Amino acid sequence: MSTVENANIWVGLDLGGTKMLATVYDAEFKPVGRKRLKTKGAEGTDSVTNRMIRAVREALEEAKVEPDRVSGIGVGIPGPVDQEKGIVLEAVNLSWENVPLAKLLQKEFDRPVVVLNDVDAGVYGEYRFGAAKSARTALGIFPGTGIGGGCVYDGQIIRGKRNSCMEIGHISVMPDGQLCGCGLRGCLETEASRLAIAGEVAKAAFRGEAPTIMKLTGTKIADIRSSVLAEAIAAGDKVVEQIVRRSARILGTAVASCVHLLCPDIIVLGGGLVEAMPELYVESVASAARKAVMPSFTDTFKVVAGKLGDDAGVMGCAAWAEKTFITRQTKADT
Amino acid sequence: MSTVENANIWVGLDLGGTKMLATVYDAEFKPVGRKRLKTKGAEGTDSVTNRMIRAVREALEEAKVEPDRVSGIGVGIPGPVDQEKGIVLEAVNLSWENVPLAKLLQKEFDRPVVVLNDVDAGVYGEYRFGAAKSARTALGIFPGTGIGGGCVYDGQIIRGKRNSCMEIGHISVMPDGQLCGCGLRGCLETEASRLAIAGEVAKAAFRGEAPTIMKLTGTKIADIRSSVLAEAIAAGDKVVEQIVRRSARILGTAVASCVHLLCPDIIVLGGGLVEAMPELYVESVASAARKAVMPSFTDTFKVVAGKLGDDAGVMGCAAWAEKTFITRQTKADT
Repeated sequence: MSTVENANIWVGLDLGGTKMLATVYDAEFKPVGRKRLKTKGAEGTDSVTNRMIRAVREALEEAKVEPDRVSGIGVGIPGPVDQEKGIVLEAVNLSWENVPLAKLLQKEFDRPVVVLNDVDAGVYGEYRFGAAKSARTALGIFPGTGIGGGCVYDGQIIRGKRNSCMEIGHISVMPDGQLCGCGLRGCLETEASRLAIAGEVAKAAFRGEAPTIMKLTGTKIADIRSSVLAEAIAAGDKVVEQIVRRSARILGTAVASCVHLLCPDIIVLGGGLVEAMPELYVESVASAARKAVMPSFTDTFKVVAGKLGDDAGVMGCAAWAEKTFITRQTKADT
Repeated sequence: MSTVENANIWVGLDLGGTKMLATVYDAEFKPVGRKRLKTKGAEGTDSVTNRMIRAVREALEEAKVEPDRVSGIGVGIPGPVDQEKGIVLEAVNLSWENVPLAKLLQKEFDRPVVVLNDVDAGVYGEYRFGAAKSARTALGIFPGTGIGGGCVYDGQIIRGKRNSCMEIGHISVMPDGQLCGCGLRGCLETEASRLAIAGEVAKAAFRGEAPTIMKLTGTKIADIRSSVLAEAIAAGDKVVEQIVRRSARILGTAVASCVHLLCPDIIVLGGGLVEAMPELYVESVASAARKAVMPSFTDTFKVVAGKLGDDAGVMGCAAWAEKTFITRQTKADT
């Protein structure tokens, strides 16, 4: 039996394009210390990793925990990672390529470190503590500027031979559709992300069909954020609601393809769009998905909004560290 | 150490719509006895299960193995199964619904029985012994009258909470496309299966563009089998080749969606179409898939033809029995 003295302590660190969040958890995953810092990606890799180290140190100080008491650190990255080697393969928003992050943090803290994709971390967080608890197959989809996806299958994050997968944002939904940032055409992401919605809404505003949008932001699509869309819908901009519902329907048909392939019992939706208008969005996705699956799949899945919000990622990071290092420990013991 | 005397013996039984194949394997999966029988589904469930029992008995006799020496039996079924409960949920070609097959065969042979989907069995066979050996993620696709799919991930057959999944034949490739047997529109299967090809080829024959087809079968699509298509292409029916290549390209774009989601390292193609024209078909699927994935996925996968032909299913059944019952044994021992 472990006493509180030697109970495990896990640290999660969720790195985003604009901010990072470090949280220290006790063995029951109660947060006991946290620190939020700006990412400042433009200042370069060394600066960002130094701030990451600082965020973890200050969260540990708040928790009154010495670094050598930490059982493991999990770090979520906005991009593909090689989990085996602990390398960030790419993080476009940070201009990172092949950064050996696990080694770097291990050296600093002398504790085991695992890196994972941030969307995978979010889905794993919802699987362990949130809306997808104890699902056999939990599919997570986070529509935002892009559309990220992750899948926890039988307690494991599904990944490819070298890196994270579940790139649901780039499955094709429209043959010869709009050009996507990835170079392909008609990807889900280019047809149905928050950015796709903003583009269509801006055109509607230009045509005089979305007066609230025109008043709030004008036609500048960078400013048409999820909260703005929700406000316009609440104020009665019918066209904005139609545009959001259409994008949710397109996502629903992509969800149907995932249901046919993976038969998830729960599909968790998260991210800005969903948080700004959970009912309208989740309901539209669910009904479109149900219409687009074979009859035998109709009742096999639920579509729900995430429960943990911003904490999904950082909790998932810490819990994945637990999963990774407890398993290794157990294997080493036998 | 096990001696030959008490080494494991595994039995595979692959049930198809028209024929069934039972094979007895030694512990190294060398076949030591086999029996092929017609299915005769029209004679009803009892008749079919009696023939299944007979096939296993006669294969055991050929192998000179007493039933009580068998460590486990794996049975592949053309339809969804509940593997936990050993129930065949549905087998459309046999008019089966909720048949408790594992219990029934256990009673007969007094040995452990596992039932699985036949496509899953085929992919597992190729994973263990054939073209997908030691893949981390092996995706198998079997285009025929329909298009079946299966996926082995990290040594496990991916399945849903209740039953088998990987219904790649019913992911949408054509919004508002042709009507599919499942009731949806534009499913991969209705746009690109052997049946879809036969429909298009029959029209070409009717128009006088496929003289060899006209000579071999006329416009009766039930007769336009894979071997006929291959013969017409070899004889110079250019339009037939174009139609087959187009269907392979459509399959390739569906493969691309699977690559984005699951990042398989190997995609194994099997079934009649592939066996009749492996090079033309595999090459067309591979190049279409490569064009339809994001740049970072281009080099992550190989597309290959299966190596085991008809034996993939029955070997997969037997090997899945080994995997299932050896694991249970090991767990019980610790």
